[in-house]
Amino acid sequence: MKEPSSTLRQTDDEARKLARTLLRSARYAALAVIDPETGFPFASRVLLGTDIDGVPVILVSALSTHTKALASDIRASLLTGEPGKGDPLAYARLTTQCRAEQVERDTPLHARIRSRFLDRHAKAKLYIDFPDFRFFRLIPQSASLNGGFGRAYILEGNDLVIHSPANNAIAEKADAAVRDLVERYPDLMSALASSLKAPEVGPWRICGIDSAGFDMISGDLLLRYEFDIPALDLEELCSNISKIAYLIP
Amino acid sequence: MKEPSSTLRQTDDEARKLARTLLRSARYAALAVIDPETGFPFASRVLLGTDIDGVPVILVSALSTHTKALASDIRASLLTGEPGKGDPLAYARLTTQCRAEQVERDTPLHARIRSRFLDRHAKAKLYIDFPDFRFFRLIPQSASLNGGFGRAYILEGNDLVIHSPANNAIAEKADAAVRDLVERYPDLMSALASSLKAPEVGPWRICGIDSAGFDMISGDLLLRYEFDIPALDLEELCSNISKIAYLIP
Repeated sequence: MKEPSSTLRQTDDEARKLARTLLRSARYAALAVIDPETGFPFASRVLLGTDIDGVPVILVSALSTHTKALASDIRASLLTGEPGKGDPLAYARLTTQCRAEQVERDTPLHARIRSRFLDRHAKAKLYIDFPDFRFFRLIPQSASLNGGFGRAYILEGNDLVIHSPANNAIAEKADAAVRDLVERYPDLMSALASSLKAPEVGPWRICGIDSAGFDMISGDLLLRYEFDIPALDLEELCSNISKIAYLIP
Repeated sequence: MKEPSSTLRQTDDEARKLARTLLRSARYAALAVIDPETGFPFASRVLLGTDIDGVPVILVSALSTHTKALASDIRASLLTGEPGKGDPLAYARLTTQCRAEQVERDTPLHARIRSRFLDRHAKAKLYIDFPDFRFFRLIPQSASLNGGFGRAYILEGNDLVIHSPANNAIAEKADAAVRDLVERYPDLMSALASSLKAPEVGPWRICGIDSAGFDMISGDLLLRYEFDIPALDLEELCSNISKIAYLIP
């Protein structure tokens, strides 16, 4: 039997899209940080959200080892992409190396991240406002995509960040825009779920939008849809979503 | 609403047993190492096995980032314990900080680890003997058990290692002992699965034994049974297994 090819593949748009989807559809991740007391790497589980620019976001307690580690060394890494049935190594996963930036409370940034995080993790409302809990933005610096045996790609941090001048405007009106869409198209969510071939586990709803795509959630399942071309503004974003829902080319 | 208690709990035998079970029943883990090129922590997915002394074992390619990292810095960390339905943070998980020791080929140690690994990961036979693949033993130095919100424990490395003078003798005769058991009790595996309340997904079989317990596998599922008191020798180990199978006190 031949050994699988071990050389890195040329990073193409398909690999970038897969990487973004793995990062943005992850409800949780393994976070690796450096333990300041021992210098050992430390792997733990965190809930994951995304900011409007696609940057992954974590909510952590100041009392935990990973938070103390990030206060001393901002270098971190996230592993996303969960395996399913069969060989765990046959499933694509992404390692994203990041620099952690703590999000200050009582800022518009904090409010935006908090709102997006709750849309995805409703149960976090039980502790999100505890004084020892804080958000970090984990700014991607580089990433390694493993698409299965012999399918490895290196990505740049910017491949995983949405650099759109429309980010702020979209964030400010995102909730209202989704409500308007549903008023106009009452069956929008089920039409989207059907277009996206989402498992029929229960009702699906949009839990996040940004210029590069949108997230849908149903119970424990999270789906990410990445547009082929990012939307230039909120209007185009909403138009994209309705076209996808009703399969309009 | 009250904030959950944040103090560490006193580590007791129940916590130790849960930690051992989380480590020894994991088919795969997130491995955190330190990338020698950047100093960043690096999290990746690895298949997990255990050696006869309970030490976790990984099989990795020399071409991968984590293997290059371990060649330069032997400090590593494993995250085990996968979430199920609902809140991922409600599920127990274990972070084990380890020192990595590469296993030399063509040694009895390598043969033992290879055989145990294949019993658990049959598909690894496709690449286990490739020249770039190697085993590392990840010797536990310390561990953090998170049993869910407000349930944190610190463990010593030795809590996760089986220090038994019988290890070698058990390893040498393990396969034959299991075969003998099945000859004596032809329905042993199904009786064990029933005693352990294993999901009825298909036939179960023992895929590893050691003085502290045994592992059973069925498709993608792995179960670990930890004895209350470690067995002193192979005979007692087999007697323990048959008593568990037939619910003999």
